[in-house]
Amino acid sequence: MEAENSFISVDWGTSNLRIRFISDPNFQIQGEFFYNHGLKKMNEIWKESKEIFPNKKNYLLEKLIEFIDKTLFEHSNIKNIIISGMASSSIGFQELDYSPIPLDLFNPNIILKKIKWKGKTISLISGIKKNDDVMRGEETQVIGIAEEFINQEKVLIIIPGTHSKHIYCKDGIITDFKTFMTGEIFNSFAENTILSQSIEYDNFNDEYETSFISGVEQIKNGRSLINAAFKIRTNDLFKINSKKDNYHFLSGLLLGEELLKIDLSKTKKIIVYANPQLGKIYTMALKYLETNKEIICVTEKKLAKSQALGQFKIYQQSISEKSQLSNYEV
Amino acid sequence: MEAENSFISVDWGTSNLRIRFISDPNFQIQGEFFYNHGLKKMNEIWKESKEIFPNKKNYLLEKLIEFIDKTLFEHSNIKNIIISGMASSSIGFQELDYSPIPLDLFNPNIILKKIKWKGKTISLISGIKKNDDVMRGEETQVIGIAEEFINQEKVLIIIPGTHSKHIYCKDGIITDFKTFMTGEIFNSFAENTILSQSIEYDNFNDEYETSFISGVEQIKNGRSLINAAFKIRTNDLFKINSKKDNYHFLSGLLLGEELLKIDLSKTKKIIVYANPQLGKIYTMALKYLETNKEIICVTEKKLAKSQALGQFKIYQQSISEKSQLSNYEV
Repeated sequence: MEAENSFISVDWGTSNLRIRFISDPNFQIQGEFFYNHGLKKMNEIWKESKEIFPNKKNYLLEKLIEFIDKTLFEHSNIKNIIISGMASSSIGFQELDYSPIPLDLFNPNIILKKIKWKGKTISLISGIKKNDDVMRGEETQVIGIAEEFINQEKVLIIIPGTHSKHIYCKDGIITDFKTFMTGEIFNSFAENTILSQSIEYDNFNDEYETSFISGVEQIKNGRSLINAAFKIRTNDLFKINSKKDNYHFLSGLLLGEELLKIDLSKTKKIIVYANPQLGKIYTMALKYLETNKEIICVTEKKLAKSQALGQFKIYQQSISEKSQLSNYEV
Repeated sequence: MEAENSFISVDWGTSNLRIRFISDPNFQIQGEFFYNHGLKKMNEIWKESKEIFPNKKNYLLEKLIEFIDKTLFEHSNIKNIIISGMASSSIGFQELDYSPIPLDLFNPNIILKKIKWKGKTISLISGIKKNDDVMRGEETQVIGIAEEFINQEKVLIIIPGTHSKHIYCKDGIITDFKTFMTGEIFNSFAENTILSQSIEYDNFNDEYETSFISGVEQIKNGRSLINAAFKIRTNDLFKINSKKDNYHFLSGLLLGEELLKIDLSKTKKIIVYANPQLGKIYTMALKYLETNKEIICVTEKKLAKSQALGQFKIYQQSISEKSQLSNYEV
């Protein structure tokens, strides 16, 4: 592909904005830029200048081009911008309906809206839904790793985060998924409850393994999360554990709660899609819970590329459809 | 008893201060007064005036007498003040060690510290502990209802709250107890997470029964709390439930999580010690979870009296002990 087939890959989430310049073939990332201007912050800024920019969508489109320009990457001949993440939610440009599952990872039919803006074509990718769950963005990452990691087997992909996602695939099709509020509940326990006084952050290392596993064990042994968590207070009161140990005990409790009820009948191998540190503790917990499945850690280095690849596949799928014209908005 | 045997019953907790004037026999409550000056607030006020009052214990003793005077209840001839609750913790007058379980409710041997102050004798009651749990105050309430409600059977007493307590008794002895962070986690979900946008408070009434039971059902069916809670977001996104319904769904989730794993082998009847509204939803949840035990709701009207009675029994037990002198501090 020449510049005509290159594109700008944008991941605009609640907290961050990532802009990547991609040239095909082989999805070379020519440039990668990060701004902490997520859509939550952008919405607040917009509200303050609402009188000058009454149309939020136009305001965000304007700002997106400004951020792209700010990278100083030469992009005048790149016409395509593809965006996934919360940009298609109520806090983004425009709220798009979710596409239902099952979703074929190799022919991903996801709602995509095209917007012409200042000589560029912006393709806004929606998310997916089932009767009681939703996601925006993670499905794009999964599509991007499908060819490399997802075959005809039953695979569970775990994407840890504020809202961890468990995505079940069978024969290359997303058949089910579940959201666990792991990261958010962790922060909320650590910051907003009585436990905040008994917890101190430290990076995971081997000396915390006992505390971490002890947390997983509580859940494995059938103890309720909201009861077991109080152990952090007594661990501190009775000086049984350090505050740093308590941090990793809480981490063990929450990973235990997230991973205890994995549907093993729907899983032959487990892919953990995370940075090496998170990958390590997820693997430890999965092994301790005796899931007895092959575990593959896909590091974040793969993330940028797989996200861009996923976006491009959804984009290609959308232009191969007859319905493409109805996607356009000028 | 004349005034000599009357006493001032004080429950000084984290958030509130309750002062009651008791005359024996029959534990008539002659006067009951409430201040929202819990020890958390008092500690903050003290820190500001630390230079004038360097000794926190003396400061709190001084303030307690001021609050008692403020009630305008004639108390010059009442010499005994008995205090339970967080007053014996690190945020109170003086941190007392917890007494271990098992604890005989009919001969309650709990650490009690006597302090002479301005013509009064102040008896500070400690709490109880097991290897990984603690409480301060609830055991006093249980001692107070022991004669009326707790016999030779196996009884579980549930005291809902910020930190709900499950207290297992056998033959009138506390053999085990567990703390559930139900109220605190509820608030933390409702105020500090993404769910806050999808929840609106309303008093429980019959129209919310379906939503409440639906929450309990999620947990009963084996769904993880941190996964099921995300249903509140989709209930709102998909407009399945009102925000008020979501409030009671979350309440059902948390009561389900608290009540699912009750140790039924240690329970013949369940006493729920709460206001009528809480008593009602706890009873509903317990029945839905098919605990199949007799449930007795002890209303809060009993609370004041039983707390005072519990305090008096601990006090009497302490003066019947040889060790009484060592309890004194002048």
